[in-house]
Amino acid sequence: MDLHLTLFLIASLVISVAAFFFAGWLYRYVAKQPSSNEKISNVSQLIKNGANTFLRKEYTVLAKFAGIAGIVILLFLPAPIWKSEFLDNLTMMLSYLFGTVFSALAGKIGIMIATIANVKTAEAAKYGIKPAFMCGFRGGAVMGMAVVGSSLLGVALIILITGNTTALLGFSFGASSLALFAKAGGGIFTKTADISADLTGKVELGIPEDDPRNPAVIADNVGDNVGDVAGMGADLFDSNVASMSAALIMAGSLQEPVKASCTVFAYAALGLLSSIIGVATARIGKRGNATSALNNSTYVTTGIFAILTAATTAIFGFEWRIWGASMIGLVVGVIIGIASDYFTDDRRKPVHMVAEASKSGPAFTILSGVSYGFLSTLPSLIGIGFSALSAYRLCAPLGSGYSMFGISMAAVGMLSIVGMIVSNDAYGPIVDNSRGLAEMGDLGDEVLEVTDQLDSAGNTVKAITKGFAIGAAGLTVISLLGAFISEVNEAVSAHNLLHPLDLLEEITSFDIMNPLVFFGMLVGASIPAVFSALLMLGVNRNAQRMVFEIHRQFKEIPGLKEGKDDVTPEYDKCITIATKGAIKELLPASLFTIIMTVIVGLIGGVHAIGGFLTGNIVSGLLLALFMSNSGGLWDNSKKYIEAGNCDGKGSDSHKAAVVGDTVGDPFKDTAGPSINTQITVVSLVASLMATIFLTISLF
Amino acid sequence: MDLHLTLFLIASLVISVAAFFFAGWLYRYVAKQPSSNEKISNVSQLIKNGANTFLRKEYTVLAKFAGIAGIVILLFLPAPIWKSEFLDNLTMMLSYLFGTVFSALAGKIGIMIATIANVKTAEAAKYGIKPAFMCGFRGGAVMGMAVVGSSLLGVALIILITGNTTALLGFSFGASSLALFAKAGGGIFTKTADISADLTGKVELGIPEDDPRNPAVIADNVGDNVGDVAGMGADLFDSNVASMSAALIMAGSLQEPVKASCTVFAYAALGLLSSIIGVATARIGKRGNATSALNNSTYVTTGIFAILTAATTAIFGFEWRIWGASMIGLVVGVIIGIASDYFTDDRRKPVHMVAEASKSGPAFTILSGVSYGFLSTLPSLIGIGFSALSAYRLCAPLGSGYSMFGISMAAVGMLSIVGMIVSNDAYGPIVDNSRGLAEMGDLGDEVLEVTDQLDSAGNTVKAITKGFAIGAAGLTVISLLGAFISEVNEAVSAHNLLHPLDLLEEITSFDIMNPLVFFGMLVGASIPAVFSALLMLGVNRNAQRMVFEIHRQFKEIPGLKEGKDDVTPEYDKCITIATKGAIKELLPASLFTIIMTVIVGLIGGVHAIGGFLTGNIVSGLLLALFMSNSGGLWDNSKKYIEAGNCDGKGSDSHKAAVVGDTVGDPFKDTAGPSINTQITVVSLVASLMATIFLTISLF
Repeated sequence: MDLHLTLFLIASLVISVAAFFFAGWLYRYVAKQPSSNEKISNVSQLIKNGANTFLRKEYTVLAKFAGIAGIVILLFLPAPIWKSEFLDNLTMMLSYLFGTVFSALAGKIGIMIATIANVKTAEAAKYGIKPAFMCGFRGGAVMGMAVVGSSLLGVALIILITGNTTALLGFSFGASSLALFAKAGGGIFTKTADISADLTGKVELGIPEDDPRNPAVIADNVGDNVGDVAGMGADLFDSNVASMSAALIMAGSLQEPVKASCTVFAYAALGLLSSIIGVATARIGKRGNATSALNNSTYVTTGIFAILTAATTAIFGFEWRIWGASMIGLVVGVIIGIASDYFTDDRRKPVHMVAEASKSGPAFTILSGVSYGFLSTLPSLIGIGFSALSAYRLCAPLGSGYSMFGISMAAVGMLSIVGMIVSNDAYGPIVDNSRGLAEMGDLGDEVLEVTDQLDSAGNTVKAITKGFAIGAAGLTVISLLGAFISEVNEAVSAHNLLHPLDLLEEITSFDIMNPLVFFGMLVGASIPAVFSALLMLGVNRNAQRMVFEIHRQFKEIPGLKEGKDDVTPEYDKCITIATKGAIKELLPASLFTIIMTVIVGLIGGVHAIGGFLTGNIVSGLLLALFMSNSGGLWDNSKKYIEAGNCDGKGSDSHKAAVVGDTVGDPFKDTAGPSINTQITVVSLVASLMATIFLTISLF
Repeated sequence: MDLHLTLFLIASLVISVAAFFFAGWLYRYVAKQPSSNEKISNVSQLIKNGANTFLRKEYTVLAKFAGIAGIVILLFLPAPIWKSEFLDNLTMMLSYLFGTVFSALAGKIGIMIATIANVKTAEAAKYGIKPAFMCGFRGGAVMGMAVVGSSLLGVALIILITGNTTALLGFSFGASSLALFAKAGGGIFTKTADISADLTGKVELGIPEDDPRNPAVIADNVGDNVGDVAGMGADLFDSNVASMSAALIMAGSLQEPVKASCTVFAYAALGLLSSIIGVATARIGKRGNATSALNNSTYVTTGIFAILTAATTAIFGFEWRIWGASMIGLVVGVIIGIASDYFTDDRRKPVHMVAEASKSGPAFTILSGVSYGFLSTLPSLIGIGFSALSAYRLCAPLGSGYSMFGISMAAVGMLSIVGMIVSNDAYGPIVDNSRGLAEMGDLGDEVLEVTDQLDSAGNTVKAITKGFAIGAAGLTVISLLGAFISEVNEAVSAHNLLHPLDLLEEITSFDIMNPLVFFGMLVGASIPAVFSALLMLGVNRNAQRMVFEIHRQFKEIPGLKEGKDDVTPEYDKCITIATKGAIKELLPASLFTIIMTVIVGLIGGVHAIGGFLTGNIVSGLLLALFMSNSGGLWDNSKKYIEAGNCDGKGSDSHKAAVVGDTVGDPFKDTAGPSINTQITVVSLVASLMATIFLTISLF
């Protein structure tokens, strides 16, 4: 291996290990905060146990799946075992398994810290917003550091050990297939519990959100952890790995492959370093504004990243155009975030209009929310398209292949600050949980006020990070499309294959006017819709079961409704329902997308798959943006009304807004964000099976 | 002009004129039915006046728009006037104006017959289902014959007079741009009135749907006419013209252009002839099943068309492969219709599941409806993709260009029985109106039972015809994409143009990996979403205004709520609100799509536009299918509950289902079906401006 590349790999390893040490330090900081309230400790123990039980069951199922998938990979990938080197297939399988283990670990670490940080934050809130913020934020940052540290570590190790970029596809597929299942499962769990708790508690009985009388309240808090923390961590881990993999695969076919690969590792490592500095320097201001504190740390990270990469580019003589591409990605990421924010911020017109429409009843809440959700797709899609176009054009003069590489570097740039993004994002469910604990532990109104402030900051920041995640996924999958073509070409030249119907040179392009491409595109476009539908129907079925169980408990347990002191609901029954349902529903939707990819590939070959990926990306981004934004919009419209606007809490407009929020919950927390991962998985399956689709296809 | 072609053109003209005579005969049949009830006559007069007032106002606005657009066309199309022959531009402008006038006429004729047929059907229902069915069906058939007759007449005249297929683009653009505005306007009008009437009448007061106390009831009936009859007629007129135009344009570049053109006219004329026979022979069976009667006449038409075209193909030596392509279109049209039917039929699982979910509240009604709506996109998109692929492959051996021509002939095949489809579709609002008249005229329960049966048949058949319309639009726009490329190539060779950045041969294909194409695709994908959002927000705003007015009337007019005999509400105020709102809202959404096409074309040139069209088609079909099917699903779930299932009328589940129905109304009757037209308009704008986008573009 080239000396330069080795040095950059080692530097990457050092920085990832540093991130782990830093995560350890943050963990100890959180752990050593005081916790004295027994009631809270008991409740938090219930949450922890629930989360761990779910995770254990989920991982048991997924381990079996990964085992089977591993065997399939060993037999067929990168090429059928009887046609390829055994070692290639073994490497691929091991990389795949390695990816699944890393992804599972990232989820596990997230749960571990989140279920400690929530108690500590609730306690710290007794002493004011400053210590509570630091506790919640540093808890989230453990997750951020673990996710990004392990993704960089994994990618660097794969390259160091195998020296083979195709093995990265296996690693990436392992990470993203596990993420897909984990997000689907966690998303179904969390929304089952959330919806059931809201409907029976808030709507039917008029008791507060985290009232301990509600049998679903613990399940709801467990859901925040397994859905938001673990699921989101797996998601960004997967996007991060996929964007680096795509960039490294394309780097291989460039004029100066080593220099390009060095650039990828340098930027990724510097992004992590910037995130470490950003997290370490984060402080809450005098006036105690948590939102500004979170945003400021993001800006600090972004600024440091820009400066460090510029310096590195100058020192090592990297291409300035590539630096420019990664800056385009970074800037557009922020712009998309701001656009998403506009549509979900409670100081902006859309939230006000939806709240206003709620006065005329729930149908208008839904109609206006759907409409603004549709509108919100325009700026983000233009942003993603424009950044891809600019990065491509900017890097085109560097030579053949550099233009697509430029797009992948825009994705790497957008994801560079992912350590910071994950930290901010994991902060959300931690403070949300701490609010619940404060309420269940009767810590009093002053503490609740502090946790409410922290929670609201979490919700505001969430909109931006979600926009960022979708934008990054968009650029990543576009560059995965490039990686797919690289794989196809490599397979063509390696195996001297010739697709029976086409000339060799045509395989590098996907012409829309080719009916196979068009056929693939139409089928591909329906996949994210069907995938979302299956997940939402899962939530629907599951929530109905849980609502039934809650009604049973209220009816059969004497004194529960009235809130007698010594009566506790059977929390575990609700947790079991959510767990069972999630485990049952997580496989069909995810397997459906993978199987459809294989079927379309076997029917129409690489051209149909090229179209399939494109249709999938286009409709996937559209639906992901629509569902995430409209979900956030309904959530905040409800909160806006609860804050006393449009007739306020308890009014008919509030009831209508609650319907909107309930619809929005699986939109924004189950289906919407899972689509990112779904697109990535499909792209990776396509790249991995490129050789097979080239040799075997019906048309 | 070739003798053969002239003969086929004259045959087409003869058959279209025959269709007009037949329509006249049907009209007289309906008009001479008895009408004696004074109360009904008064009400129907109100409806007629309302519809005509709206139409006059709408056409006044659109005439101004068409005038301006005509001048722009004269100056710039097909090429800027200073670079082209004046006569070309004049022809284009006249063809455009001709298209708008034809489209407006089709709408006007529809309103004319529908506002007579509704009274006659209500009266005929006194004598049983047989005479009532014949009256309603033949009323609808007047519209069917007028629409298809005038589209064939128009296309044939353009070719006879100008001999220029590019002028067809102008004619088609005139037809579809007017259709776009008319559907947007009519769609907003009808749903404003429908939603307001339902919310205030059914939900708040618990009075029946067509209770004359409700101030919105006349506006609601006017809406059925201007939205469903006029709008739908304009829609299918436009699809029909566009599919013929695309086929004829592509025929020009084939090896045997005359033979191909003859095939197009022969099949289109035979489709009309089959529809005439199908309508003429339609009879209702002994057991009086209206649904079977409608479906049987469709099957008869389909069978006759298959036989006649096969005979013609044999006699005139047309290509059997092309006949095969048109049969593929016809069969797939029926399959897509059946798939749509599955998701909206009240004897199938989806409707039952949504009704069941409604027991848990409106949020579950919405979530399950959205989910099944998403699922419903899969079979139809596969169907459209597969028929395009098969038609392409089937016709490819005929030589260069025949494969794309095959796709356009599949569209022509699918639309061949459009005369029948429109007849069935227009039947729906006529019998719906007659039901309202029977209720307002106190004709008694027996009559209401007959009209209910007729109405329910209309709703069932509607699902199939809607699926058909979307499928046909899908194939049509794919072939318009082919027509766009033909136009681009013709412009290249005619003006000897060379796009600065590309080689000449590259312009015939649109490579997904070209970032301009990808950029265009992402932007194009957001257009149908934004377009739908603008329309739905228009309905939202307007309905809120009307609900306000209805509440005012109930409060301020003494005795209205109680239903005193001599008290009538101020119907005209509601009609005025609906009219004003619709006129105000119809321009922005439609103009937005046209302007975005121009902007993207001027920024990214033909490559970006190729991507833009593709993104638009993919996301447009997805959203159109989703919105039409989920809307129909909610409508029928509500009716299913009203029929006594899932706790029945007045229960909480019924209330939840009403929320679903209200959301579904603008989904299925405003946004969903308008998307078809929106896609067609964008495709035509692109083809028309091909030369301009080739010469002027930023990238």
